[in-house]
Amino acid sequence: MNTNQITASVPTKCDLLVRADVVVTQDTDRRVITSAGVAITDGLIVEVAGYNELEAKFQPTQRLDMAGKMLLPGLVNGHTHLPMTLFRGYADDLPLMEWLEDHIWPVEFQLTDEILSIGADIGCCELIRTGCTAFLNGYFHEYITGDAANAAGLRAVLGEGFFHFPSPHFPTANDCWDTIRTLDARYDKNSRIRTAVTPHAAFTVNPDELQASFQLATDLDIPWQVHLAESPVETAVCLEKHGKRPVELLRSLNLLTPRTTLHHCVDVTDDEITALAENGVNVVHNPASNLKLCSGLSPVQKMVDAGVTVGLGTDGASSNNQLNMFRDMALAALIGKVRHEDASAVNAQTALDMATVNSARCLGWPELGRIEKGCPADMIALDLGSPNLMPMFSPVSHAVYAATGMEVCMTMVAGEILYLYGDFRTIDVQALRDNAFSAVEWVRTKAKK
Amino acid sequence: MNTNQITASVPTKCDLLVRADVVVTQDTDRRVITSAGVAITDGLIVEVAGYNELEAKFQPTQRLDMAGKMLLPGLVNGHTHLPMTLFRGYADDLPLMEWLEDHIWPVEFQLTDEILSIGADIGCCELIRTGCTAFLNGYFHEYITGDAANAAGLRAVLGEGFFHFPSPHFPTANDCWDTIRTLDARYDKNSRIRTAVTPHAAFTVNPDELQASFQLATDLDIPWQVHLAESPVETAVCLEKHGKRPVELLRSLNLLTPRTTLHHCVDVTDDEITALAENGVNVVHNPASNLKLCSGLSPVQKMVDAGVTVGLGTDGASSNNQLNMFRDMALAALIGKVRHEDASAVNAQTALDMATVNSARCLGWPELGRIEKGCPADMIALDLGSPNLMPMFSPVSHAVYAATGMEVCMTMVAGEILYLYGDFRTIDVQALRDNAFSAVEWVRTKAKK
Ligand SMILES: [Zn+2]
Ligand SMILES: [Zn+2]
Repeated sequence: MNTNQITASVPTKCDLLVRADVVVTQDTDRRVITSAGVAITDGLIVEVAGYNELEAKFQPTQRLDMAGKMLLPGLVNGHTHLPMTLFRGYADDLPLMEWLEDHIWPVEFQLTDEILSIGADIGCCELIRTGCTAFLNGYFHEYITGDAANAAGLRAVLGEGFFHFPSPHFPTANDCWDTIRTLDARYDKNSRIRTAVTPHAAFTVNPDELQASFQLATDLDIPWQVHLAESPVETAVCLEKHGKRPVELLRSLNLLTPRTTLHHCVDVTDDEITALAENGVNVVHNPASNLKLCSGLSPVQKMVDAGVTVGLGTDGASSNNQLNMFRDMALAALIGKVRHEDASAVNAQTALDMATVNSARCLGWPELGRIEKGCPADMIALDLGSPNLMPMFSPVSHAVYAATGMEVCMTMVAGEILYLYGDFRTIDVQALRDNAFSAVEWVRTKAKK
Repeated sequence: MNTNQITASVPTKCDLLVRADVVVTQDTDRRVITSAGVAITDGLIVEVAGYNELEAKFQPTQRLDMAGKMLLPGLVNGHTHLPMTLFRGYADDLPLMEWLEDHIWPVEFQLTDEILSIGADIGCCELIRTGCTAFLNGYFHEYITGDAANAAGLRAVLGEGFFHFPSPHFPTANDCWDTIRTLDARYDKNSRIRTAVTPHAAFTVNPDELQASFQLATDLDIPWQVHLAESPVETAVCLEKHGKRPVELLRSLNLLTPRTTLHHCVDVTDDEITALAENGVNVVHNPASNLKLCSGLSPVQKMVDAGVTVGLGTDGASSNNQLNMFRDMALAALIGKVRHEDASAVNAQTALDMATVNSARCLGWPELGRIEKGCPADMIALDLGSPNLMPMFSPVSHAVYAATGMEVCMTMVAGEILYLYGDFRTIDVQALRDNAFSAVEWVRTKAKK
């Protein structure tokens, strides 16, 4: 006893010590640790190591025993439109323009804050349920998504969207810039909510407004995101309007930068991929949405090989119809093989990188997406007792190919548990369900007008 | 009171009356009934109608109240290799031949009945969990899968696979035919287990043996199934060996018949599709497997338009890596659009048809896959309280695009509940998990040799 007391070092205090069968760290060495532990203090990860080592070293205030579970970093959704969760399955199997003009826009035009917030709340609930802890958004009235994410305990980067001016939302560019500045200030003290400048697309915003908006992003030191090269149709429109393909247009405007995040990039040439890589541009791949809207198969592996940071997004639930990063990880890996005619293309590790560390960079928040000392304690646990995760040879393979997302049994942001074994700690699911019924009635009424 | 007693008809007895918010029947009219009920007796559906109507008409021995749930027919998996669930995630992201020769075959050669049955048991557990109630199998030692499915309470059509003779399993063709006859007899009195004749592929079984095996299927009056036209590589091999493309070869042998079920059909021409339709051939589409092994995108909508019955299968968990029909339904719909360059191709109803009524025909069991009077009571319930199913405009869209399969909260075969709210009634999941760990050790040991 005395000998032990002398040789043992004094245990360090920590807020929480989590134990799990496996931890997929996504750190620089992509370590996968078995019989592992994670020590957390003040919402940050203090140490990741074998559990016994941490048990000897730390004196935790609380413990969380996740026996039979696998920890992963909270997944990061690189592209979504959260309030559009309202339109999940509202109109499917239609060409893009018919879908927008006959179904989405007529209703969208009449949306109220109250209805939008129902969509945002349902979206937050699904993100938490399926292990996503941070997302990059784009829509209107972004304080609604910001407040929903804040109440849910999620991290969000808010993108107040704009088309060319004047628009229904913004009579002049200055009105839009003011709104973005106000939005940024609204969450100034909030460590989980950030802002991004969000022109809709290169063919719907004038070149000078694209550049002015980029200047605003630089002034505020926040990301600048835009839908780009989503389909050959967009390319044709862009060529007709500007005489340049979408990537060429951005290059000519000096808008290919490390601050730039491009959504989709389905229709990009080899030269354009080189340009994206050379300029440190971030790209978000949206496989489900690209398939459902028939946009095409993005050359993801080519971009990865060229050195482009390729993240992953669900896009909106109206064109997915899920906000489930596990589904999009699997899709990215599966269709990547056919796209590149190579069964080894977009392998499991690549897909997991896209959904974690790469998406984090697309959000301009590179410390997310990893379970590593000093990083925010954003983590999820998968229940390895789910039959589809048996037997397990490779944790990374299972996360990408075998998991549905519903094996998530714990979701944590900044050390705070948002979901544990069926229990949502920040969301009243029954109220949400009632609100969802009301929203369906509301949409159906408006659609008739 | 007296008036009521006089005018009310005498209630009919039934074993079970199920109530649900919505019933997607998949009957001939594709009716979707809200506030619905299903009356069941002796494992068969007696009536499907509004709940109040059934409540007035039937006097059930038992009731099952599935408030907040949606009933669907049990999904039918048209193609799998159940014991290969053992190899889930064992070797991914590899070209087909490297995967088989360096990883699967060296271990497969040493498989024991005990290890195989672990794979089959895990497979049954996943099928039940994700709402599949019947499947068409192909592997060796098919009594193992038959006994596993029987114990689990599932329906199975067993396909004892064979290559050209002599083979490790069958010195002569007669040995194989005897094994199939024995297998068929083994389950003669079992209403849930059936048999199919299962040559591996047109390029691995000689033409005369293909024909002899078809004769056996005719004699036993059971389905005849074969992998066919899975990839351009197979076509090339077939052309070199027989001077004919795979479909042409079968046609020349008079093997395109309504008894025939072809798995994959990725590399088929327009003329071949016409031949498949004209001869009443059944085709099973396996989107996840076709993507993962980089086989290509099957022209599903073309086949459907031509009048071919196209079912849906997961293929083995070693090339999927799930046995989740919900995932393959979504994949079929999503990649179908890009394959046909049409956002309306393989719409939600088509995908659901594939996974239910069409797969049922591929199994030679056409009364499955529908909730309809006189059909077996094979049904599943989805929990509409799952956030990814909110809001709901279209039950069929949600089943195909929004559900992960894990919303299944009840699985029933022949009126018997196999799974209800997390509880597996026929499977010891903890024992399964222990066995899965042993199997991983076993495979790793054998792989080293
Ligand atoms: Zn978008
Ligand atoms: Zn197969």
